[in-house]
Amino acid sequence: MRDPIRVLVLGTGHMGSGIACLVLKKPGLELVGAYARRAERSGLDLGAAIGLESNCGIVVGTDLAATVERSKPQVAIQATCSRLEEAAHEITALLHHGIHVISIAEEMAFPYHRSPELAEEIHRLAIAQSVAVVGTGINPGFVLDRLVITLTGVCANIQSITARRVNDLSAYGPSVLASQGVGLTPGAFQEGIRSGRVVGHVGFAESIHLIADAVGWDVERIDEHREPIVARTRRETPSVTVEPGQAAGCHHTAVAYRADRPVITLIHPQQVQPEREGVSTGDSIEIVGTPNVRLTGRPEIPGGIGTVAMAVNMIPTVLNAPPGLHTLSDLPAPAAMLGDARRLIGNI
Amino acid sequence: MRDPIRVLVLGTGHMGSGIACLVLKKPGLELVGAYARRAERSGLDLGAAIGLESNCGIVVGTDLAATVERSKPQVAIQATCSRLEEAAHEITALLHHGIHVISIAEEMAFPYHRSPELAEEIHRLAIAQSVAVVGTGINPGFVLDRLVITLTGVCANIQSITARRVNDLSAYGPSVLASQGVGLTPGAFQEGIRSGRVVGHVGFAESIHLIADAVGWDVERIDEHREPIVARTRRETPSVTVEPGQAAGCHHTAVAYRADRPVITLIHPQQVQPEREGVSTGDSIEIVGTPNVRLTGRPEIPGGIGTVAMAVNMIPTVLNAPPGLHTLSDLPAPAAMLGDARRLIGNI
Repeated sequence: MRDPIRVLVLGTGHMGSGIACLVLKKPGLELVGAYARRAERSGLDLGAAIGLESNCGIVVGTDLAATVERSKPQVAIQATCSRLEEAAHEITALLHHGIHVISIAEEMAFPYHRSPELAEEIHRLAIAQSVAVVGTGINPGFVLDRLVITLTGVCANIQSITARRVNDLSAYGPSVLASQGVGLTPGAFQEGIRSGRVVGHVGFAESIHLIADAVGWDVERIDEHREPIVARTRRETPSVTVEPGQAAGCHHTAVAYRADRPVITLIHPQQVQPEREGVSTGDSIEIVGTPNVRLTGRPEIPGGIGTVAMAVNMIPTVLNAPPGLHTLSDLPAPAAMLGDARRLIGNI
Repeated sequence: MRDPIRVLVLGTGHMGSGIACLVLKKPGLELVGAYARRAERSGLDLGAAIGLESNCGIVVGTDLAATVERSKPQVAIQATCSRLEEAAHEITALLHHGIHVISIAEEMAFPYHRSPELAEEIHRLAIAQSVAVVGTGINPGFVLDRLVITLTGVCANIQSITARRVNDLSAYGPSVLASQGVGLTPGAFQEGIRSGRVVGHVGFAESIHLIADAVGWDVERIDEHREPIVARTRRETPSVTVEPGQAAGCHHTAVAYRADRPVITLIHPQQVQPEREGVSTGDSIEIVGTPNVRLTGRPEIPGGIGTVAMAVNMIPTVLNAPPGLHTLSDLPAPAAMLGDARRLIGNI
């Protein structure tokens, strides 16, 4: 059998370390390198850097070019940031080395929306280097877009699409909670929205454009709306205490219009301890069309391990893809990779 | 803009006529021909043959080669049969004319299972002719396979997969009901299984092999089991009356094993008037793994209009596909085609 597929992971945070651990476990994959942006991780063994019980023989590099030259990866998984502008310099450096790229940066789910020129540049470079690039994740990347698009395939016609994801932020740390306004008074929450400190969910526009593009709808405008989820009971996690009257999270919605008619509605309330006020977490999709389609999952597909799995499961898909920058609807859906990864690869 | 995509439909029964009607409605598609196996339909206007209010200017042909030469289609949708052995001569004739093929024959969902040599022959011929072939449908083709495979993509590991489809046969005619043993005594039902008159669901093996192939599992054996759903109340449809004690349908299951452990379980009870005994129709998928995933849809995705829509929505996918015989997990999922079909086609 051919040699294992050589994988580089960028990022040693929660997502990057999860991805590295899963790559280490998968037959047919070889973790050949790890890159971190944080200078203090330079030279550490990856096992020590991400809190494994033992070293794993991979030295963390903070110079991407040197890390690539030392490790000679075929594919890299980027888990360093959310925004395309921050992600692009790493992606282009990898492409210049002829390495396929899977990114979990939220904006990479549909980079043509926020950064069309950068997306076009990445696409051209990937073609020139004969490698493929794709963004992936759970949200954006799956629940509010891929799963929706897949379900539309059974429809002869569609009037409207509504998808809702209700999740629980209790496991997250201070920086995520701050971005959702958790613990703020309603006034401070609105002030946080204005100043940009409270952002809510990143990825609605990407999910909407993925769906609209796939079904052939021209979206005229997207209205986003963020409101505090005001706690009526005390909610407490290791990172935060929310008193009644404070925000337990952010109720974020996005509505896309065609001919002044709402056609895609995405609803994503995120909060700590939703069960304290009788809120069940879950994912649901409702298509009004011919036929109507309604699907519900409880609890929600978890964003953390789900994104880690999707990124690793995407490896055969990206290696088999034609060169260029892809979106999830251009490529076959990745499946769980439960056998040897090498069996899933064509002639590369 | 380029010319409309020229579509030929094979079959003028329930599915074929539904497909033809949808092709007629879709911008960017042109229905150029219709083929029927039934000699008595030769020369009829398609509108009259399938019960439309007016003629549509398409003459039904019963000689496939002549119909193809007259209509010059780019893509054909085959809705004439379930079995690959019956489907193959039409598929190969179409390929010899350089026409892409979408088939709703159940066995075409995974033709490598029952007819590996025929599948290989179709694959080689499609490559030689630079066209693509794919099987599609709702079951097999979506609920118990594509949707399952798509959901596995969020999993780092999986112990077992269970999918269940509970549907209602009340709208079906005598031949479908007979194939499910509806109206038989339990003894006659068992005798029908032995003689082959009662078949239950066609497609379990295809769905299981699609899933197993996608995730990299070697399936050792598949156990199928068919039992009568014995009515406790009277059930009545325009086609059949079922008295208490007779079969209202067939409870058909299939279990796939690896190392003597059940890993994929598919459950598909089909009956008339399930609501008469409190049975709700619906689709559900449960993956036991990391993470667990559970998804439920009520009512079930309808098999009739769903298959019609999938077949038509597959047109851009098959036109964009590399030459050869594909399975659904090789290709991007088709989305609803709500804009002009031509916008979805690459350089063909």
